[in-house]
Amino acid sequence: MRADLYLVPGPIKEAGLAERTVVMIDVLRASTTICYALNAGARSVIPVKETDEATELRNKLGVENSLLCGERDGVKIENFDLGNSPLEYTSKVVNGKKIILTTSNGTRAYGRKSGSNLVLTGAIINISKVVAAAAAAGKDLAILCAGLLGHFSIEDTICGGMLIHKLIADAKLNLELNDAASLALLLYRSNSRALRETVAQGEHGKYLQKMGFGEDVAMATEADSIPVLPILRDSQIILEDQLT
Amino acid sequence: MRADLYLVPGPIKEAGLAERTVVMIDVLRASTTICYALNAGARSVIPVKETDEATELRNKLGVENSLLCGERDGVKIENFDLGNSPLEYTSKVVNGKKIILTTSNGTRAYGRKSGSNLVLTGAIINISKVVAAAAAAGKDLAILCAGLLGHFSIEDTICGGMLIHKLIADAKLNLELNDAASLALLLYRSNSRALRETVAQGEHGKYLQKMGFGEDVAMATEADSIPVLPILRDSQIILEDQLT
Repeated sequence: MRADLYLVPGPIKEAGLAERTVVMIDVLRASTTICYALNAGARSVIPVKETDEATELRNKLGVENSLLCGERDGVKIENFDLGNSPLEYTSKVVNGKKIILTTSNGTRAYGRKSGSNLVLTGAIINISKVVAAAAAAGKDLAILCAGLLGHFSIEDTICGGMLIHKLIADAKLNLELNDAASLALLLYRSNSRALRETVAQGEHGKYLQKMGFGEDVAMATEADSIPVLPILRDSQIILEDQLT
Repeated sequence: MRADLYLVPGPIKEAGLAERTVVMIDVLRASTTICYALNAGARSVIPVKETDEATELRNKLGVENSLLCGERDGVKIENFDLGNSPLEYTSKVVNGKKIILTTSNGTRAYGRKSGSNLVLTGAIINISKVVAAAAAAGKDLAILCAGLLGHFSIEDTICGGMLIHKLIADAKLNLELNDAASLALLLYRSNSRALRETVAQGEHGKYLQKMGFGEDVAMATEADSIPVLPILRDSQIILEDQLT
């Protein structure tokens, strides 16, 4: 079984993704927020690339049924209902709603037409669920890190490394890795005892803390705290137990 | 002093590079070949993006004065004089000539208009010269890894990590690092005793060995074996002692 990791949303040979389990990772904060939203009872999260696209979809779905959510530069978009902080996605706010989400890095990556019928949302807070699902699927893995504005980001890479480590250590899989996957594994194993600190001291972690989102960083790095498995189906992200 | 490393030729804020020392790294093989060529007496290396651009320049410079060199998919381009193997760049072949070089990753990266007046070619084989020059310049560093077809490559990253390690350990600099620079440093320090093996077992290293270029990988990983300092001046790469 192969596990190939991509540090940035670069030129991936997308043709090869159709036969793979795809894991989208954006620890700070889209993946984390998606887990929180679905866990709090949102009907689905619809990842959308641009703000105007999000607004159009909102008009189509109606105010009763949906929330307009997302950030640019980490901050809630003007006139939107929610930003991209998992703290905002409480049951009271999101229960029964479709979440239209547009973020700078993570939700844009969902725009890729991977062709895969198993696209999972991976985060530190649901890592063991992703490990179990990927192991059960038994297919080669493509781990797509959202990165930060086109650059590598330490939190997505360490989460990818954590996933690979657990596939080897917990699921007892024998994996062939690409160079980036080996690097991610090294990064995780070198910092597994200081996961939160490593993320908090990274560029994006520091930026979010400066912007007043320090609690988000803490929430995003609590392993297995929100054990849900978000799956992409027909352009919407839903929980596995909502699959029909 | 800052040292920012870029794992791939991604969206770098180029405006910021003008005030920095820029180090271009493509260990397999453009940086290595450039060092070999200049050490063997080539007058200069002219990095060029496309093959037709290279051919035009050759016609302008003349057959007597220049060599048409480069690869695609690792293999010498049809009708070119030389490929991209450092082995080919002997004194007998290149002495006194201008080397017009177009490669898949490395020379394309030189196309960036960094605005910096100190753009160095960094490789494992000239690492200490680069360390000394960067330390002497005393400016913030931008380390640009060529990568492999838009992806991260382990050999460029480990070379960048080696550069940072030596700036700290040998030149006694106190460096602020971006996330990618920290990662490169971790990669180097975790593998410094098995530098050649790490590069040889990487994706690009394995590909080159399969293509019959195993010796190139060995040559490229011999630290400080070709202690020259190639510097970019007016679109040509020359040795520091050729500076007027």
